[in-house]
Amino acid sequence: VWDEFLGWAETADDSDAAEFDVADLGAPTPAPAQVFAIGLNYTAHAAESNFAVPDTFPPTFTKFRTALSGPVTTVAIPTGGNVDWEIELVAVIGRRAEKVAAADAWPYVAGLTAGQDISERIIQLSGQAPQFSLGKSYPGFAPIGPWVVTVDEFTDPDDIDLQCAVDGETVQHGRTKDFVFGVPRADRRIVPGSPRYCRATSFSAALPPGSVKAAPRKGSSRPGRNSLAGSRASASSASSS
Amino acid sequence: VWDEFLGWAETADDSDAAEFDVADLGAPTPAPAQVFAIGLNYTAHAAESNFAVPDTFPPTFTKFRTALSGPVTTVAIPTGGNVDWEIELVAVIGRRAEKVAAADAWPYVAGLTAGQDISERIIQLSGQAPQFSLGKSYPGFAPIGPWVVTVDEFTDPDDIDLQCAVDGETVQHGRTKDFVFGVPRADRRIVPGSPRYCRATSFSAALPPGSVKAAPRKGSSRPGRNSLAGSRASASSASSS
Repeated sequence: VWDEFLGWAETADDSDAAEFDVADLGAPTPAPAQVFAIGLNYTAHAAESNFAVPDTFPPTFTKFRTALSGPVTTVAIPTGGNVDWEIELVAVIGRRAEKVAAADAWPYVAGLTAGQDISERIIQLSGQAPQFSLGKSYPGFAPIGPWVVTVDEFTDPDDIDLQCAVDGETVQHGRTKDFVFGVPRADRRIVPGSPRYCRATSFSAALPPGSVKAAPRKGSSRPGRNSLAGSRASASSASSS
Repeated sequence: VWDEFLGWAETADDSDAAEFDVADLGAPTPAPAQVFAIGLNYTAHAAESNFAVPDTFPPTFTKFRTALSGPVTTVAIPTGGNVDWEIELVAVIGRRAEKVAAADAWPYVAGLTAGQDISERIIQLSGQAPQFSLGKSYPGFAPIGPWVVTVDEFTDPDDIDLQCAVDGETVQHGRTKDFVFGVPRADRRIVPGSPRYCRATSFSAALPPGSVKAAPRKGSSRPGRNSLAGSRASASSASSS
C-alpha cells in the first residue's frame, strides 16, 4: 500500500490542490497496527529518570492507539497527576519486515514524523511492576504529525534535529545522533525472533505496514517541565539537519 | 459492526453449513485495534512472581498484535530463554466505551475466549524497567480461540472455569471469581479518563470495537512449567460454570 501511495505521489497532479490549515489535520497515521515506544533512549534522559542506560536492548512499551491525535490538539491533563512530556522522533514502518539486517533497515521505514510522548508519571512508576504503557496512553497523550516525511528527504536520517517549545520557549533540543539505539538498531530489537537477539545481527521485528515506532528522546534542558498541565504543547516537525 | 453480526447470527440459515477442523481456524479476533493485558490478577500468581498484589490498579501492558495466532498452532520457543505460559480469560470489547460504570460494563464485552499468555521471562524482567510487553510478544506468543462466546452463554460470567493442559496433563486450573480485578473492574481502570481513576466509579476505558483485553490468570498447580519449550500448549476453551 505504501509503495502504491509513493507511486501515486510521484506523478500526482496538484495543480488544483486546496489550501488547508494544519490545525485541521489529524494524526498522519491514525490507526497503526502496533505502536512500539523505545524507552530510555538518551543517556541524559536515562540518568534523569534514575534508570541505567540500557546496554543490551531498550525497554519497549506501547502507547495505546486511542492516545493518538493530530499535532494541533487540546489534551485533557488529569488533575492530581504528574504529567510530563517528551518530544520524540516517530518512525512509521511501511513494509512488513522480519529478520532484516540493521544496515538494511531504513528502506522499511515509510517516513518520519514528530510526536509528543505525554506521560502521567504517577501511574507509570507506581507499584512493583512499573507500567510505562498505561500512564502514557490517556486520550490525546500521543499527538503526532503533521506529516510523515520520507527518509530520502533527510540529509542524514541518523542525525535529525528535534525541538520542543512551550509557549514559544524552547524546552527541549537535541539530535537523534545521541540516541543510545538509533532507528535501525532499535528496530532489530523489537519483537525479536532471534534466540540471541541481544547480539542478533538481524532486524527481527515482525512489523506489519502501518506500525508506528516512537523513539523517545530528551533534550539537554527542560525548565518548568511540569508547567505543561492545562496548556498546549507544540511539537516542531522533525526537520533535516 | 458487532451488533450487525449478532443480528445476522440470530437468523442465519446454517442448514448448508460445512464441517471444519478447529485446527484450520486462526485467531477469532486477528486484528484488534488494541490489546490490554491485566497483570498480576491472581493473588496466588502475584505471590509466585514476587510482586505485591496490586491494590489500586493492575499493571496493564500489551501483547503486540503480531503475537496473535489461532488456538491450534506451533510456537517457536527461543532457545536460551525462560519461557512460561499462563492460561487466560480473553474479553473481546465489542463497542466503543468511555466512562461506563463497572456495573454496566458487561454489555460492552462482545464475548469471551481462551488465550495463552506465553512469556519469555528473561526479557520481561531484565533491566531496571521490567518490560512485560516485549517478552510476551514473540511471534505466536498469544494463541487465542477457537471462538468468541457471547456473555449470555455463561451462567455467571464472573465465575468461569479455566484449565490448561500440557500433553493431557492439567497444569493449571482455576476460576475467574478469584480474579483480583474482575472483568468489569479491570475494564474501568484501562486508559483512565477520570482524574482519580483509582477510586473512579466509571468505566473509563476508551476502547474501540475490536479491542481485546486479556486478563492473565494462573491455576493453583503448575508442575514442570518450563517443560513447554518445544512442545505445544493447548488451552481449553472458556467454559461456563
